[in-house]
Amino acid sequence: MENKIADLEIKMVNEVAGNFSRHPSQLNQLMEADAEIIDLKNKNIDYLVVKTDGLHEEISEKLYEDPFLIGWMSVTATLSDLAAVAAQPLGLLLSLQLTKNTNKKWLGAFKKGINTACSCYGVNVLGGDTNLDSVFSVSTTGIGTITHTRPLLRKPLLPGELLYATGKLGIGNAYAYFRFFNSSVNVNYQPVARLTESTFIKKYATACIDTSDGFFPALSVLSTINRVGIKITTPLQRLLDKTTLNVYHYSGLPAWMFLAGPHGEYELLFSIPPAMRNLFEQACTDWEWKPILVGEITEGHSVQFSSEEMEIQCSPSVIANLFTESNGDIQCYFENLTRQHKLWSQQ
Amino acid sequence: MENKIADLEIKMVNEVAGNFSRHPSQLNQLMEADAEIIDLKNKNIDYLVVKTDGLHEEISEKLYEDPFLIGWMSVTATLSDLAAVAAQPLGLLLSLQLTKNTNKKWLGAFKKGINTACSCYGVNVLGGDTNLDSVFSVSTTGIGTITHTRPLLRKPLLPGELLYATGKLGIGNAYAYFRFFNSSVNVNYQPVARLTESTFIKKYATACIDTSDGFFPALSVLSTINRVGIKITTPLQRLLDKTTLNVYHYSGLPAWMFLAGPHGEYELLFSIPPAMRNLFEQACTDWEWKPILVGEITEGHSVQFSSEEMEIQCSPSVIANLFTESNGDIQCYFENLTRQHKLWSQQ
Repeated sequence: MENKIADLEIKMVNEVAGNFSRHPSQLNQLMEADAEIIDLKNKNIDYLVVKTDGLHEEISEKLYEDPFLIGWMSVTATLSDLAAVAAQPLGLLLSLQLTKNTNKKWLGAFKKGINTACSCYGVNVLGGDTNLDSVFSVSTTGIGTITHTRPLLRKPLLPGELLYATGKLGIGNAYAYFRFFNSSVNVNYQPVARLTESTFIKKYATACIDTSDGFFPALSVLSTINRVGIKITTPLQRLLDKTTLNVYHYSGLPAWMFLAGPHGEYELLFSIPPAMRNLFEQACTDWEWKPILVGEITEGHSVQFSSEEMEIQCSPSVIANLFTESNGDIQCYFENLTRQHKLWSQQ
Repeated sequence: MENKIADLEIKMVNEVAGNFSRHPSQLNQLMEADAEIIDLKNKNIDYLVVKTDGLHEEISEKLYEDPFLIGWMSVTATLSDLAAVAAQPLGLLLSLQLTKNTNKKWLGAFKKGINTACSCYGVNVLGGDTNLDSVFSVSTTGIGTITHTRPLLRKPLLPGELLYATGKLGIGNAYAYFRFFNSSVNVNYQPVARLTESTFIKKYATACIDTSDGFFPALSVLSTINRVGIKITTPLQRLLDKTTLNVYHYSGLPAWMFLAGPHGEYELLFSIPPAMRNLFEQACTDWEWKPILVGEITEGHSVQFSSEEMEIQCSPSVIANLFTESNGDIQCYFENLTRQHKLWSQQ
């Protein structure tokens, strides 16, 4: 039911979508065509990049309640995936499920979150679809292009390569801890899709993934796809960002739990071949930027790291599965994390 | 949470998405990149076309219950929009909201609906996103391209132009009548996105819209955007397809109600300038195809038609708004239709 029939419906579409800024190459204005049309003449695009990503559990579990944050994240989460493959965003499509009692003020703050993120990233909403549903949710499709370079995939990843992150880690889980377990630690969460860093690292990196689902789950995906292991050479505490480090000290929880997912920080993890290391690090210095060295790729299938006094070596899926096995129940997940920590402590 | 962490999650992604066929120009296999990458080198694309369309109310209101139909429609609805702008589909992205008790058999039939539609249209699923939610729903993003021709928009539409439909109308509402009001009339509903017809009519048509929301709602949109009126010269009964005509006779309902929306038949409505009429109709004959002449574009803002013995002239939004004003309540909508019919009968 997308034509959004009649005057009343046209008003509703304008209400929801009308004040998103439009792409300069978009041929059609709002309502003027059955689909969104972008002029690509003389653009010489090598690759088209598309990605759909939804915020559902984050909203239904009340991890995100602030409408501005929901708007911000519905843009950021999708653009982070475009950044991970080294694409330039062309625009976004929004699929909104509103409830009958979504109020105007709430919707205004949600739209402000989207618009603020779009201006920040220089991206436009190309179009969308609005439906009534029993719960509010949003799915965003990102459209991007790659010209004159190759895309970054999650492979190849070879033993000996170095693994970096675009920034320090843990804020996603620190925020979840604040929301679900301890409201006294006040954590601000508004991650930035690493589009700028992506255009820099694509000249050097061999593989890339974002940490939208957390650090260890990203390692698990890299390990599975590339059939390699990963040795984290930097002590985990030193991978944590400042806010997370505060929560870490305050909570007494082990560092690895802040990196276990499933709620990530939207940094990029990427690999640099050893022969490229000096060149890459010099370029970073020239660019006045310091990525975080995480560790290196190894033979085998295990992940090795030190958290507090423990030296751990395990299958990388062990940590990622702690959430999956909890069936989305946060309390159960926390128990799984605690049980796993005890198991390791007794070894 | 789209990376679908860890082995367990990878299994789930393969389960849901693994057996959709992939586009030959897609660079990445399942899970190999954070976004879907399509090689467009040497393709010389003029326009990129994108559209997101969701099935939500159709499922929550139980208009669609058969999982095969839901799969079929999640492809067809989006491709119909690409057809309306004269785009060639490149592929689809699916955003699925599964519930915890979505069973394997149901999911199998849903996937069969998607795969059957994809083969029928020669289209591939490029990627997607799966979330758990309290209700099942699906949003589909269609990606298409236009090369060497212009896109079709819902404008321009000028007085004197002729309005055609790619096929007879009414089955969408006849199906809704069968589902909600009279299960004894058995109506099969599996509309086809008019991609083939679109490539034919784009050489002649000036404007185009699909009837996904029904015939009168589409007229309402055309009228509003182009500030024109529409005179339906063909008696409404003769616009109805065979099945709908049976339901029409059986139910005793007036013909206009089967064209009132909001559930459409996914035909294309398109305009032909009078000077082009002979050329167009000759080309149709040569192609062994007969589009339905609906009427013509007029000055003013009203729609004129005859249904049974009544001659009606009204604002085109009057009919479309009958559904909007019912707030999605089907029983209330039916009462609105009946009240409107009485009003007209008493004039």
